[in-house]
Amino acid sequence: MKIEREVFWENMDMVNRIGQQDDGGITRLALSDEDMKARDFIKEKCKGLGLKVWEDGVGNIRARKEGRDPTLPALLVGSHLDTVPHGGKYDGTLGVIAAIETVRMIGEKQINHRHPIEIIVFSTEESSRFNISTVGSKAITGKLAISMLKNYTDKNNISLYDALIDRGYMPETIQESLVRPENTKAFVELHIEQGPILEREQIQIGIVEAIAAPMRLHIHLAGEEAHSGSCPMSMRKDALTAAAEIILEIEKVGRDESKYQTVTTTGNCEVFPGAMNVVPGQVNLFVDVRGIHIESVLRTLNTVIAKTSEICNKRKVNHQLKVLSQERPVMLDQKMMDVVKEKCKKLGLAFKQMSSGAGHDTMNMAKVVPSSLIFIPCKKGISHNKNEDVKVSDIENGIKILFETVLELAK
Amino acid sequence: MKIEREVFWENMDMVNRIGQQDDGGITRLALSDEDMKARDFIKEKCKGLGLKVWEDGVGNIRARKEGRDPTLPALLVGSHLDTVPHGGKYDGTLGVIAAIETVRMIGEKQINHRHPIEIIVFSTEESSRFNISTVGSKAITGKLAISMLKNYTDKNNISLYDALIDRGYMPETIQESLVRPENTKAFVELHIEQGPILEREQIQIGIVEAIAAPMRLHIHLAGEEAHSGSCPMSMRKDALTAAAEIILEIEKVGRDESKYQTVTTTGNCEVFPGAMNVVPGQVNLFVDVRGIHIESVLRTLNTVIAKTSEICNKRKVNHQLKVLSQERPVMLDQKMMDVVKEKCKKLGLAFKQMSSGAGHDTMNMAKVVPSSLIFIPCKKGISHNKNEDVKVSDIENGIKILFETVLELAK
Repeated sequence: MKIEREVFWENMDMVNRIGQQDDGGITRLALSDEDMKARDFIKEKCKGLGLKVWEDGVGNIRARKEGRDPTLPALLVGSHLDTVPHGGKYDGTLGVIAAIETVRMIGEKQINHRHPIEIIVFSTEESSRFNISTVGSKAITGKLAISMLKNYTDKNNISLYDALIDRGYMPETIQESLVRPENTKAFVELHIEQGPILEREQIQIGIVEAIAAPMRLHIHLAGEEAHSGSCPMSMRKDALTAAAEIILEIEKVGRDESKYQTVTTTGNCEVFPGAMNVVPGQVNLFVDVRGIHIESVLRTLNTVIAKTSEICNKRKVNHQLKVLSQERPVMLDQKMMDVVKEKCKKLGLAFKQMSSGAGHDTMNMAKVVPSSLIFIPCKKGISHNKNEDVKVSDIENGIKILFETVLELAK
Repeated sequence: MKIEREVFWENMDMVNRIGQQDDGGITRLALSDEDMKARDFIKEKCKGLGLKVWEDGVGNIRARKEGRDPTLPALLVGSHLDTVPHGGKYDGTLGVIAAIETVRMIGEKQINHRHPIEIIVFSTEESSRFNISTVGSKAITGKLAISMLKNYTDKNNISLYDALIDRGYMPETIQESLVRPENTKAFVELHIEQGPILEREQIQIGIVEAIAAPMRLHIHLAGEEAHSGSCPMSMRKDALTAAAEIILEIEKVGRDESKYQTVTTTGNCEVFPGAMNVVPGQVNLFVDVRGIHIESVLRTLNTVIAKTSEICNKRKVNHQLKVLSQERPVMLDQKMMDVVKEKCKKLGLAFKQMSSGAGHDTMNMAKVVPSSLIFIPCKKGISHNKNEDVKVSDIENGIKILFETVLELAK
């Protein structure tokens, strides 16, 4: 088996010229002109490989290579092409181009396989435009009511539903394309880690065993505005110093629970009125908690609630804590992980079972069919950013593992 | 002596109708149409009392009542009429209307006094419009070069210099009106405390012994942006958790130094990128330190610098700390304080020597002539806000003390 480096990189480059910004970042928002152009390019590439290409009602692209037995359930392999604003070249795109390269190699070598193999390019994975993520995989697994699509709008107030209609899709027809165990054997996604662990530990392949779901909190603190010069320290109800204590407690519980792979982040701290000469009267904190062990996540939530309350009582600051969203972590299929593990051993690649803190389409697919998410390292863990970068050797390892895994499952 | 309540409150009301907002706050920005209207009203009132009224080159209003000996230096008494946006009814305005009431009472009773008494309404005390405070008192004490007036601009890019010219003032002529010991015996200002101490301690009169000057710091923290889900706690360089530790150390040193009346405030904390799913990469903190003991203020600054550095080293976050401004506190004249103290004893009012954390025109005047700043309590210490409020009895006590003090000094 030989990866056609030139073909692979030409495909990567062609896609990443679409939406490239002056700063080097890529902006290919879901269902934008740029996204549609990238999708057209991929559809043409797939047709060029002799695949049968079609799109479903929410814009997922499917490109099918039949196996010996067309009645068998298909093996799906793919990722997404849309990006965050000023995003990187590899998040999603790598998994799509690698799937194409995998199918190309299988075709070139005329390798025998019984199950159909389908490349899938998921629609609207990033939440940047419509404030909802992994739309294509949610819809195709029956987890997103079509009526809901009208509720998600972009900043120009265009709904996800209208955007799909504008692009010629018929959301209601998604029912005809649902993924079910009868038509789908399994799903495999290759993705960059978007975190620093593999690079730091010098491991080539991450085999994801669980995908954490974010729990999101909003904490509103209301103290008392006062003049920074004339209000003595002992008479203050400073919302920002209360917030600072809470931020450190949130970090502490994240550290304490990190043995269970739970992480905690305060992503923003808005201060009102935010003037140099006013003791802050109000603060909004936005908190993200992720984990794969439900008990650890719940313990973390309870600690955040208790500490917030304790700190606010001590400081006579009022508070409101709201859970904005709370999803359950997804465990991935053990047999699928074993297949990937065997292939790593065969190719002599260092691997590690790990969890994914970021969400992926795999997380929806896994609820319906056996699914596997394979990570390769990215530089410094940087992602969603123009500095997103991956070593060429890591990409080649990833494609090799994807190829071996797909063949094993489709044979 | 009898305060004409009706006259006093009518004057307060007339001024505070000018610039009143729908929310009940008062917006009378320096040199705005509203400010000019309020000044016109005050000039007419003074003329009605038979005073000689004129304005200097930066718009300070002077209204003079001659005493028996016009060659003696004058006693100045007053405050300012401009407000912050959506400010209160008493900050500044109280001191002006109380000065008018004092002079009215002296005239009504035909009380003999040797020294001239001059009401002074300072121009542009608040920094809200031009980002420079106490302009009138700085200029009249020779502490503000006229050429500098062109450097301060409002949000419409109108310079303070041009705003003065537009209103018909000739800034260069300020040289003819400078306050000097030869022409000015002393200055007295009555003002609300803008802090909670007098109310809390149930004291009627605050005799200010020192005015703190703010030292302002900007701390920039640069950690590393990372995905909130995929970056483990142990590999983070979170700029916000570093900021939280620094905010608490700033509060701690303020508490430690509060026995020297030093206070510390972090007024704003800007987080970048500020997204729920991103570990914060950068934070800007804006810090205000005020005190009347130079050594305590410097010790506070050194502690903030040392702790910031220590926390950032520990967390591997880069930082830059910049001192934006640093002024020296102003000590007020002991003999003037003694006069006010005697008057409090005579009238049976509880008083307290205290410092002022907020800046006032008195702070500039005190550098040239003996000056006194007299505080009365305000409700909950609230100021610069529509909820600014003062008890009627406290206002009457303030006017009585002002009247007695002015007479004592002018007699």
